[in-house]
Amino acid sequence: MSVLIKGGTVVTADLSFRADVYCEDGRIAAIGEDLAVPATAEVIDAAGQYVMPGGIDPHTHMQFPFMGTVASDDFYTGTAAALAGGTTSIIDFVIPKPGQRLMEAYEQWREWAEKAAADYTFHVAITWWDDSVREDMGTLVRDHGVNSFKHFMAYKNAIMADDETLVKSFRRSVELGAMPTVHAENGELVYQLQQEMLDKGITGPEAHPLSRPPLVEGEAANRAIQVARAMNVPIYLVHVSCKESLDAITRARTSGQRVYGEVLAGHLTIDDSVYRSKDFDFAAAHVMSPPFRPKAHQEALWHGLQGGNLQTTATDHCCFCTDQKAAGRDDFTKIPNGTAGVEDRLAILWDEGVNKGRLTPNEFVAVTSTNTAKLFNLYPRKGSISVGADADIVVWDPQGSRIISAATHHMNVDFNIFEGRTVTGIPSHTLSRGRIVWCNGELRAERGAGRYLHRPPFAPVFEAMAKQGALQEPQPVER
Amino acid sequence: MSVLIKGGTVVTADLSFRADVYCEDGRIAAIGEDLAVPATAEVIDAAGQYVMPGGIDPHTHMQFPFMGTVASDDFYTGTAAALAGGTTSIIDFVIPKPGQRLMEAYEQWREWAEKAAADYTFHVAITWWDDSVREDMGTLVRDHGVNSFKHFMAYKNAIMADDETLVKSFRRSVELGAMPTVHAENGELVYQLQQEMLDKGITGPEAHPLSRPPLVEGEAANRAIQVARAMNVPIYLVHVSCKESLDAITRARTSGQRVYGEVLAGHLTIDDSVYRSKDFDFAAAHVMSPPFRPKAHQEALWHGLQGGNLQTTATDHCCFCTDQKAAGRDDFTKIPNGTAGVEDRLAILWDEGVNKGRLTPNEFVAVTSTNTAKLFNLYPRKGSISVGADADIVVWDPQGSRIISAATHHMNVDFNIFEGRTVTGIPSHTLSRGRIVWCNGELRAERGAGRYLHRPPFAPVFEAMAKQGALQEPQPVER
Amino acid sequence: MSVLIKGGTVVTADLSFRADVYCEDGRIAAIGEDLAVPATAEVIDAAGQYVMPGGIDPHTHMQFPFMGTVASDDFYTGTAAALAGGTTSIIDFVIPKPGQRLMEAYEQWREWAEKAAADYTFHVAITWWDDSVREDMGTLVRDHGVNSFKHFMAYKNAIMADDETLVKSFRRSVELGAMPTVHAENGELVYQLQQEMLDKGITGPEAHPLSRPPLVEGEAANRAIQVARAMNVPIYLVHVSCKESLDAITRARTSGQRVYGEVLAGHLTIDDSVYRSKDFDFAAAHVMSPPFRPKAHQEALWHGLQGGNLQTTATDHCCFCTDQKAAGRDDFTKIPNGTAGVEDRLAILWDEGVNKGRLTPNEFVAVTSTNTAKLFNLYPRKGSISVGADADIVVWDPQGSRIISAATHHMNVDFNIFEGRTVTGIPSHTLSRGRIVWCNGELRAERGAGRYLHRPPFAPVFEAMAKQGALQEPQPVER
Amino acid sequence: MSVLIKGGTVVTADLSFRADVYCEDGRIAAIGEDLAVPATAEVIDAAGQYVMPGGIDPHTHMQFPFMGTVASDDFYTGTAAALAGGTTSIIDFVIPKPGQRLMEAYEQWREWAEKAAADYTFHVAITWWDDSVREDMGTLVRDHGVNSFKHFMAYKNAIMADDETLVKSFRRSVELGAMPTVHAENGELVYQLQQEMLDKGITGPEAHPLSRPPLVEGEAANRAIQVARAMNVPIYLVHVSCKESLDAITRARTSGQRVYGEVLAGHLTIDDSVYRSKDFDFAAAHVMSPPFRPKAHQEALWHGLQGGNLQTTATDHCCFCTDQKAAGRDDFTKIPNGTAGVEDRLAILWDEGVNKGRLTPNEFVAVTSTNTAKLFNLYPRKGSISVGADADIVVWDPQGSRIISAATHHMNVDFNIFEGRTVTGIPSHTLSRGRIVWCNGELRAERGAGRYLHRPPFAPVFEAMAKQGALQEPQPVER
Repeated sequence: MSVLIKGGTVVTADLSFRADVYCEDGRIAAIGEDLAVPATAEVIDAAGQYVMPGGIDPHTHMQFPFMGTVASDDFYTGTAAALAGGTTSIIDFVIPKPGQRLMEAYEQWREWAEKAAADYTFHVAITWWDDSVREDMGTLVRDHGVNSFKHFMAYKNAIMADDETLVKSFRRSVELGAMPTVHAENGELVYQLQQEMLDKGITGPEAHPLSRPPLVEGEAANRAIQVARAMNVPIYLVHVSCKESLDAITRARTSGQRVYGEVLAGHLTIDDSVYRSKDFDFAAAHVMSPPFRPKAHQEALWHGLQGGNLQTTATDHCCFCTDQKAAGRDDFTKIPNGTAGVEDRLAILWDEGVNKGRLTPNEFVAVTSTNTAKLFNLYPRKGSISVGADADIVVWDPQGSRIISAATHHMNVDFNIFEGRTVTGIPSHTLSRGRIVWCNGELRAERGAGRYLHRPPFAPVFEAMAKQGALQEPQPVER
Repeated sequence: MSVLIKGGTVVTADLSFRADVYCEDGRIAAIGEDLAVPATAEVIDAAGQYVMPGGIDPHTHMQFPFMGTVASDDFYTGTAAALAGGTTSIIDFVIPKPGQRLMEAYEQWREWAEKAAADYTFHVAITWWDDSVREDMGTLVRDHGVNSFKHFMAYKNAIMADDETLVKSFRRSVELGAMPTVHAENGELVYQLQQEMLDKGITGPEAHPLSRPPLVEGEAANRAIQVARAMNVPIYLVHVSCKESLDAITRARTSGQRVYGEVLAGHLTIDDSVYRSKDFDFAAAHVMSPPFRPKAHQEALWHGLQGGNLQTTATDHCCFCTDQKAAGRDDFTKIPNGTAGVEDRLAILWDEGVNKGRLTPNEFVAVTSTNTAKLFNLYPRKGSISVGADADIVVWDPQGSRIISAATHHMNVDFNIFEGRTVTGIPSHTLSRGRIVWCNGELRAERGAGRYLHRPPFAPVFEAMAKQGALQEPQPVER
Repeated sequence: MSVLIKGGTVVTADLSFRADVYCEDGRIAAIGEDLAVPATAEVIDAAGQYVMPGGIDPHTHMQFPFMGTVASDDFYTGTAAALAGGTTSIIDFVIPKPGQRLMEAYEQWREWAEKAAADYTFHVAITWWDDSVREDMGTLVRDHGVNSFKHFMAYKNAIMADDETLVKSFRRSVELGAMPTVHAENGELVYQLQQEMLDKGITGPEAHPLSRPPLVEGEAANRAIQVARAMNVPIYLVHVSCKESLDAITRARTSGQRVYGEVLAGHLTIDDSVYRSKDFDFAAAHVMSPPFRPKAHQEALWHGLQGGNLQTTATDHCCFCTDQKAAGRDDFTKIPNGTAGVEDRLAILWDEGVNKGRLTPNEFVAVTSTNTAKLFNLYPRKGSISVGADADIVVWDPQGSRIISAATHHMNVDFNIFEGRTVTGIPSHTLSRGRIVWCNGELRAERGAGRYLHRPPFAPVFEAMAKQGALQEPQPVER
Repeated sequence: MSVLIKGGTVVTADLSFRADVYCEDGRIAAIGEDLAVPATAEVIDAAGQYVMPGGIDPHTHMQFPFMGTVASDDFYTGTAAALAGGTTSIIDFVIPKPGQRLMEAYEQWREWAEKAAADYTFHVAITWWDDSVREDMGTLVRDHGVNSFKHFMAYKNAIMADDETLVKSFRRSVELGAMPTVHAENGELVYQLQQEMLDKGITGPEAHPLSRPPLVEGEAANRAIQVARAMNVPIYLVHVSCKESLDAITRARTSGQRVYGEVLAGHLTIDDSVYRSKDFDFAAAHVMSPPFRPKAHQEALWHGLQGGNLQTTATDHCCFCTDQKAAGRDDFTKIPNGTAGVEDRLAILWDEGVNKGRLTPNEFVAVTSTNTAKLFNLYPRKGSISVGADADIVVWDPQGSRIISAATHHMNVDFNIFEGRTVTGIPSHTLSRGRIVWCNGELRAERGAGRYLHRPPFAPVFEAMAKQGALQEPQPVER
């Protein structure tokens, strides 16, 4: 199958220019003005449209078994919805139960993911520690293309990693050239504040943000960053939701530390008033961690993207339907945590970002695709419009618009946190490794068409940090 | 016994003025120019000298059983040396062993302290948690005049308080109106870095600061402050030694939080080059935690005092002799942690502070005495020159000078970290509750003359914080 | 006349305690429990009330000739209103016209002030520069008790001081031991933005804040602070209204610089929505510079007081009646700048500060009175409850309340920016140098009873800075 | 002429990969492994070497008439030396005398530059203001490919732009889509401090940094940034030399403002001790503004590059020979300001940056070439290795080394501020638009071969800012 995307404006993280893009055998074969291509090539008329790298969502949880239930989007429905929205790759998470071998969990998730319609890869969570964990980390990096490990600092009595685990896992990561990532919330504080809320008789979703105030995230972010600094390893913070954790990142970056931050489309645009809705279902549908924040945090997060202190955007896509959320009707701590969004991220970022002048189109590409590809060593195969790259492309119609709604979205969940928003700027076509999988509103996702992406370790920053560390290596004093 | 201090300049935290000060029955009975007093009054000629509140050292460890030995200054020798240096009160620490009832430890320390020559009181450490700890905290506050509790965030596998203990103890403190204080170092990181140093064969004192870099302190300081913020309680950080933890304090104060910081005379003036001495005894003699820091931190700490982000100065006086320090000859983690200084603090602060223009004489009084008295609710009985206050007074000769040396100091230890420094500005006389206990170089300390100081809870800031908290009290949403 | 204030709680910047206060011959003669006093003494029953130092307003403009009119409160009506609100001293401003001798202006203002009912003193503005200004600064400090000079960085083409004037005046101030103070707004930017607003046809009061956005103040604050740093002189910033200038102060203080900040009762409590009122008179009545700010700035300013980065509160009392404000009906740049408040400051600070837990009662005294007295060297004659101090006292009824209104206030102006607010906590009595001038709602101000206050130069911080400067004095290299 | 660079590793700002690079007709014609090329192509064996975009120096002053003399490198010698060091383009400055028409100056500089051996373009300085300046700015942008204007905030009584000029020029820049740039030093403070030094008899080069302390730069940087914020225009700060100005940039970027900073190779590596040399010639040779700074600033500047708050590196190449510098033998204010470096920048950045692990090779390319190309709209013609780009390429031998020395450098000046440093990592070949102009130590620069580069206005960030501004456009209130 070959496709010619004709007459559009190519927009990359670097620049914008008029060019046709020709795709063949799943790759970008040529870029240029007035390309001559085989007559058999399917032609997409991209006049007046932008031709951009498909989105990469670095944070999803498809069919995740969590809090007594399983996320409602599986790897097929979730990735299909992603394609409908212009996102052509996801990085999901393998999350072993404490005590479970990493390899066992990894293989389970690989199996689950075989049905994916878009390309995918996995961060692997470190939820406990012993020598087998250390060993499996090595196996995963060397043999299975994993180059990032996730640490939950929240969820006490479940998957929380304590400081000892952080130190040991970060130290192992630096040996392997793998990026540690963290969910930064102080799990002990969350636990104590949850008990306090329940003790006070505040049992509804309004207690959720009260038990996870921004300081809980800011504290953990700072702690993780300092552990990374002590271990001389870069670090990536997932779903930065508030000024406090962004400030921790900014302080570290200002002092030259290699720290990276991800922000969710939801945290950029939705505030915590949702939790005080009188409608339990509505409020519960927004329960995720970290929670949505008071409005002032949104501006700070946009500034983080603009100033380069945040590099990537994601969704933490993890859907639960209304009946699943109902498990926490009498106790907010039992509401399955998670919201959907993998389909809507690009449209939200464009509408609130580019249309409002907060981001240039090039910055849009950087924060929705290219930066993630670079940080997790998928670049330029993913995240670029360049000859030889995978033909993961979104053709973006800046004039097109739609009203976001659960009634029309492709995600397998009965609620949409962006319900009712009109967004201007939508994908007219999505190509996944050269196949047209979304075409003017028609979804042509194919079950199992997605491939697992191997990500090599030792991104360039690791080599630099190792050099710097070697210069500072402590020496004993002779006495 | 009555004493007239004649012709000096009274210097308080607020102002300086010419006045005689007359002391009777242990208290200040009159202040004014040309006071008429009984002929029997002993007269101190204070012409050309400053008459100031005696120093209060909020951080000492007399005869502390620690790391397999006992600090060499007991409550008598230590407080006597304090008086020689112009310090008339100390706040020492009751440190229960994990599992030990607080009351039992408290009574032990009270007994040890009966021999003290100067007034004293105790912070009580929370080194573990169960209901008995909760209960004893109440007893101590209500019945024994304790209004502050200490938490060691370092010393893993010994007296370290984990986050759960911090949360529970801070919450209890707010109920009792007692100030939580913390030794801020991330004990887990310290432990791991110590192992790393030993693994690399760096076993000498030079490994001590390497295993406790500033980030270790900055992280813990930030964490403790955030826990205090979540619990709506003020917090006091002992021995702030570096820019990183000072920055955490400054950020919090800038956002209106009630956070206080103490700095040691040693951290203000001594840098970490001491640990790289080829002389093990010299290097080991400086081993304390947190360690002395690279020189640039000193300027930051002075700025902290000048800008009001640090309020008090102390010594963490905890002496170990050369033969005690030798226990760690082959393993720096076994060197008993601690340095002396209770005798030298005022002279160091005056010489480096007032003589170099970093502090006004009034600020000197504030940071060596008055602020501590206020924060721990001893004011104006201590920390002031006012009618009715305890006659704890130092007559300060700004022209006098001495060379600090272990050969001449009164502390029971064979090393002085300020050895060889010439200081200008020394006490000519010290009065302890009206008795002249130091007189032109003659020490007249009396064993057992010191009294235990009861400190009431609920300093004014607690009432304010409670009001603010009540206004923000969360409410359930009716559904 | 002698007065006994009986049974109250004395509240100072330092502490609170039960005591009677006896005043004789204009001074505080005794403080203590159950004082025995002459039978002739008038007795104020202060049971259940606080006995505090009278307020000092460091920023007023009585009968100021400005923008083509004259402020409507003269020195009598303005100070009488101050007494009604518990404020017993003001620091007003002598503002020479560019080219006018300082001494001439000074004498003019002294004459105007003779009718004052409360004590007063003057900052003198430096609105231009030549040798006579330099000379008159010396005369004012040495012979007339002036120890502070004011610089307007705004009001281009009128009284604005450019950088050259700042440098020269600050350098002169350091010689004289006088405190430079600044109105920090970049006058050039204001001027250009005003033109821009008029060019766009935005001529109403809503253009006022748009032409003076916070950055305009933050920039000037930072600039003035840096000039002070270069000249090695302390500096005091009047009416800090926004986060941007507070941040500049905080940064400087954090680096040890001697910088002080004042905040107005209005900026702490009123936001910029007032300028968008459809009622021109209402909007115009709020026109002052710097303008009221978006609400988020208020929290920052309270934090400034709490963290000690702001030290004093004031009003910038400068009243213009509705018909005076009407001069700018068609051009907002012609609306006389100024608002009233000298009567209401204490009540606003108590109600919003103490009642809401933002400030302790002691901090209230510090920021309404004592800190100003200290900074401008009036302490302890003013700003303290101590034997020998001027009997400037407010007896504060924390249960009493009133509704603030132009209909009932004593200020000579037909508008009140706090109109309609119910404040709890009001003065029951005010004493001015021992005379009861406000008594349960009855104002007994006496025209001409106020005295001019001499303020000596060289507050202690000047001596410290001079020492520090001398240590850093540059030396030529010998070649 | 066609050239094949064979077997090297292409390093761009984005990534590194093995590929041959084929250049034809001055452009890059093909990139790939094992390229088949015409037999006539000259072949460079790049095995073991890096193939990178040639450096762009955004800050040079060739043959600049300044301070009574003329910089000793003319456009030929200077650009030839640049090529020897791997720098293939410069952005120089047109600097009209106050009162001189911009177009006249522009034409003068264009004429001078015709002899250049490498490509060049010009920032144009705004040194005064009237309507003709406004008009000429438009002409330059529309007709002559100028998209940046420079403002000197220093050099009082010469080319200093006051705040009024800044405001007017920035406002004009936003209309034209041109980037304002500033030399940030408070010229008034510098002038006053210079007088102070001369008055104290400190007349040698040691007075130079004393008259321009970091606060002088920090103040001006902050001021310029705030003016840019008020005008809604991006801003670029040249030669950021100290923590103070970097902090101003960082604060602004953290709040989302579009601010960019440039740092010189010299400020990253040389400290202010040079000015205290007993050798006048040595000290004077280092006189440039802003001066070299105390060592601690260097680490801050590297952190600025690492954290992304500084984007570009430059030299401010402006050479004066020893006899020219001698003009200030008796008065440091008369020493012509400037140092050389255009030849050495890449080697210094590589050796101190990449070899020490501060920068990755990709970051090296970004900060020496690509970021400048993007900011000034030369990308991807310059600053990239991509098909169609100008073949401005440096082949970098990471093993090669040389000792920097005036004895061997190609710059027309008798002094080198990096004298004696051994750098590892040197250009083996430089290509300028496809011509090999430096080949293993042989310089083949051609007089007049350089071309003037047109730079279009309205980089993408201008469009975004305009959108954002439009959303915030103030509106009058209807009354």
